[in-house]
Amino acid sequence: LSLMDKKVGLLDIDIHGPNIPNMLGLQGITPLVTDMGIFPLKIYDNLQTISIGFFLESKDTPVAWRGPLKHRMIEQFLCDVRWGETDYLIVDSPPGTGDEILSIIQLLDRVDSAIIVSTPQDVALADVRRAIKFCTDYKIPVPGIIENMSGFVCPHCGNTVDIFKTGGAEKLAEEYNVPFLGRIPIDTAVVQAGDEGKPLIISCPESETSKAFSRIIERIIEIMPVT
Amino acid sequence: LSLMDKKVGLLDIDIHGPNIPNMLGLQGITPLVTDMGIFPLKIYDNLQTISIGFFLESKDTPVAWRGPLKHRMIEQFLCDVRWGETDYLIVDSPPGTGDEILSIIQLLDRVDSAIIVSTPQDVALADVRRAIKFCTDYKIPVPGIIENMSGFVCPHCGNTVDIFKTGGAEKLAEEYNVPFLGRIPIDTAVVQAGDEGKPLIISCPESETSKAFSRIIERIIEIMPVT
Repeated sequence: LSLMDKKVGLLDIDIHGPNIPNMLGLQGITPLVTDMGIFPLKIYDNLQTISIGFFLESKDTPVAWRGPLKHRMIEQFLCDVRWGETDYLIVDSPPGTGDEILSIIQLLDRVDSAIIVSTPQDVALADVRRAIKFCTDYKIPVPGIIENMSGFVCPHCGNTVDIFKTGGAEKLAEEYNVPFLGRIPIDTAVVQAGDEGKPLIISCPESETSKAFSRIIERIIEIMPVT
Repeated sequence: LSLMDKKVGLLDIDIHGPNIPNMLGLQGITPLVTDMGIFPLKIYDNLQTISIGFFLESKDTPVAWRGPLKHRMIEQFLCDVRWGETDYLIVDSPPGTGDEILSIIQLLDRVDSAIIVSTPQDVALADVRRAIKFCTDYKIPVPGIIENMSGFVCPHCGNTVDIFKTGGAEKLAEEYNVPFLGRIPIDTAVVQAGDEGKPLIISCPESETSKAFSRIIERIIEIMPVT
């Protein structure tokens, strides 16, 4: 996998629902904080992450914050975290175009690009239209759209069922003249892997879903090579 | 259906992803605004709704607002909308415990209760724990938890597949001593109905999924009768 020689920082700015720690098996671990800054947690040699989830008292502590506090937290994550050398800094943001996204755009000198992930049904695609328009307004390039939850293969009979429809995001990508990056099917193995904190692409790289993830990653690296 | 003689107001405060207009087939319609206030749109004799979606320029207009602007919009929806006589005012809020929810709590004299909806996988349940703790902190009663996307019946072979697991929300309800209100299965008919703007419970009241919805509604009316 060509991703394996890229150094990636993963910044979770979903302040109210920080799921990255659980999904990477890091719950309960606290990053090192010194006067030199906050040290992100290393998951693999080439992957580090930081999330508000690491700094909460317990697993049920809600973060009832308004925008200004969220802004300060995101600022701290951007300025005080010692990422070291990274090829890509990926920011995982909550849905919508609210405070978190506006803070990231304001705090970073330049957001290189925004990858849009959507489920295929019309109601979700309405949100994607708004997201594309938002990126245009803020002059952020959109290197592509990913269709998640795209089709389900029944493990009993092998038939495919398009639970949330399929192909909607691809059509939308065409309409807006944006690359379509690929589809991720609905797969119980992905749910299981997330709950167990072991990414499927690591634990089971040969599965069809892992291959779908890999193809999308390869395309993104192609479109946005490390400079 | 006992719901049919209740007068319901539905307030959509998902400012960044207002999907209620589409899901109720009301896109492109603008509510009447006069010096007497904003008049909500009537969908059925006993159901009225208001959403920021009705006031956007076009279907792809993003709402890139920070908290203070959202607060003012929610205030307007609460103070200036002429709901008339209603038995229940249901507020559909975005996920998380951010500005929208904090504004609603602050602006309403008293939030009677918060119904929590979750998918069954562990990662989603972590967010529910935070939501319950949030309600406790703000002294908002939780009349129950609903498990959405709970199991899928393959239309080809009739077997059930627990795509996002099943039963997690029920176990959590037990743990926190909160009523469990019921399960909504994954059903392509719900996706279809939402995209077509016709609620399944109206267009196809005899389906198993509609019956699941009805049972949950009956339970909620039982727990929170009109006074």
